[in-house]
Amino acid sequence: MQTHSFGDYHFSPTAVYPSVQAAAAESSGTWDYVFVATKALPDINDDSDTIAPLISRDTVIVLIQNGVGVEAPYRARFPGTPIVSAVTVISAEQKSPGVIKQNRWTRISIGPYTDGWGTADDVLARKGNAAVRALAQWWGDSGGIKDVDVHDELDLQMVRWHKLCINSAMNPSAVLCGGRGNADMASDPELRRHLRGVMEEIRAAVPAILGREFPEHLAKPEAILKSTDRNTGARPSMLLDWEAGRPMELEVIMGNPVRIAREKGVELPRLQTLYALLRSLQEMRKHDKSKL
Amino acid sequence: MQTHSFGDYHFSPTAVYPSVQAAAAESSGTWDYVFVATKALPDINDDSDTIAPLISRDTVIVLIQNGVGVEAPYRARFPGTPIVSAVTVISAEQKSPGVIKQNRWTRISIGPYTDGWGTADDVLARKGNAAVRALAQWWGDSGGIKDVDVHDELDLQMVRWHKLCINSAMNPSAVLCGGRGNADMASDPELRRHLRGVMEEIRAAVPAILGREFPEHLAKPEAILKSTDRNTGARPSMLLDWEAGRPMELEVIMGNPVRIAREKGVELPRLQTLYALLRSLQEMRKHDKSKL
Repeated sequence: MQTHSFGDYHFSPTAVYPSVQAAAAESSGTWDYVFVATKALPDINDDSDTIAPLISRDTVIVLIQNGVGVEAPYRARFPGTPIVSAVTVISAEQKSPGVIKQNRWTRISIGPYTDGWGTADDVLARKGNAAVRALAQWWGDSGGIKDVDVHDELDLQMVRWHKLCINSAMNPSAVLCGGRGNADMASDPELRRHLRGVMEEIRAAVPAILGREFPEHLAKPEAILKSTDRNTGARPSMLLDWEAGRPMELEVIMGNPVRIAREKGVELPRLQTLYALLRSLQEMRKHDKSKL
Repeated sequence: MQTHSFGDYHFSPTAVYPSVQAAAAESSGTWDYVFVATKALPDINDDSDTIAPLISRDTVIVLIQNGVGVEAPYRARFPGTPIVSAVTVISAEQKSPGVIKQNRWTRISIGPYTDGWGTADDVLARKGNAAVRALAQWWGDSGGIKDVDVHDELDLQMVRWHKLCINSAMNPSAVLCGGRGNADMASDPELRRHLRGVMEEIRAAVPAILGREFPEHLAKPEAILKSTDRNTGARPSMLLDWEAGRPMELEVIMGNPVRIAREKGVELPRLQTLYALLRSLQEMRKHDKSKL
């Protein structure tokens, strides 16, 4: 690990298992924390099912994943299990096999998750809050890691929707516009207007979806675009996935937000258009029919 | 010509010229009517410049082209020349070189064009109306051609915007979704919602743009989609152009409507998104950079 924030070091895990089943069979007792840091692909794979053998009633599930609505399958499968929802920002790359380089600052935002609106039962809320406090203590005060941001349930969802503004604007557009990086897209006046439009329609919808005003301190679309201008060379993960022939995080970045907004009576027209087009494009490639 | 509406016949033009310059040099006197039936590609070629050698003050220019805003370059170049604006619908194909087959009904809608709002000077309006009446007489009553629809200036623009609903929904989407025909797209629930959304946002904007309510007799989005369901196998012209590596009618189908609406204070978010993406995709292919 060659890191900007934590120095250089070699990471040795205590144990590695070939599968969740193997971990469940070999371990004695219950698991206190299960961290899920995979790509969120609910249309392909249900990770809540995958981790089920490890989960007891008091295991804390920590979801470090992009998008919105990622917690719902876990809550449905484990109605009484505490969940910590987490959003992380990190600029890192695998330089060669086993060598991870971190370039700039990191941040992890964490908050409890009961039902996404903070209105579920008290026991679950208490367990979730305790888990968030414990993580903040271990990572932050005890572990010396800065930039651990603690939020209440709704504010953590705000952070998810704010990061979504960026991801759902940049990611699908990069594929559909013919394979351009973030700064390259932002330099094209029509694409810039489109990117700002996607961010603005999500930003405008958030109060109706979450019932709370979007906080002023979170970067506004124009500020995000200015930061994008400087970040030349950055290519969104969805474009890298598309170019490598891997599945894309369509559902948590586009499908879930469109559906969640619609349930609250809000349309996200640009995002629904991106979703319909990219979903079809992926299907067409799957069947080797795309002419693009 | 193998036609459903006009029987089978061989068409022999009175004269064919290799260029507009040749036609202008060989002909004596002035031209009464100049019909422009090319693809409208104002970003690539200015047809108003091309036909300039044939145009006198009393020549009637008849524009049989798709999209909106196609008349503007002609009006700018020939401020005192009458213009007839025309929209045609025809299902036809070239079966082999020189053999054109028409399958179903045709329609041509014509109307005068002064400035698009019917507010230009009276002389121009009178000349335009006279040309429209003459064409309707020659084609219709004298020529036995049914389905010649005569409109006033604003209503002809209504017809243009109505056809645009279909073209601007189907055409760019067919390319961006991975190369699917109209009925195939309409069978995909998310794409169907997107297509209806494009048509609805244009339909909702038209009264603000043209200052007149959209007529009830023009097919509504759901009716258009139902008709699309039956028309299996149809592939929009923009998709055929894209697959053949030809330039697409981006500006008159997407760019002009977005700009005209914006001048009237109306946003067309889905259409602007389609425009930005497809315009970029075309640029990327031009420079051979597209990874799609």
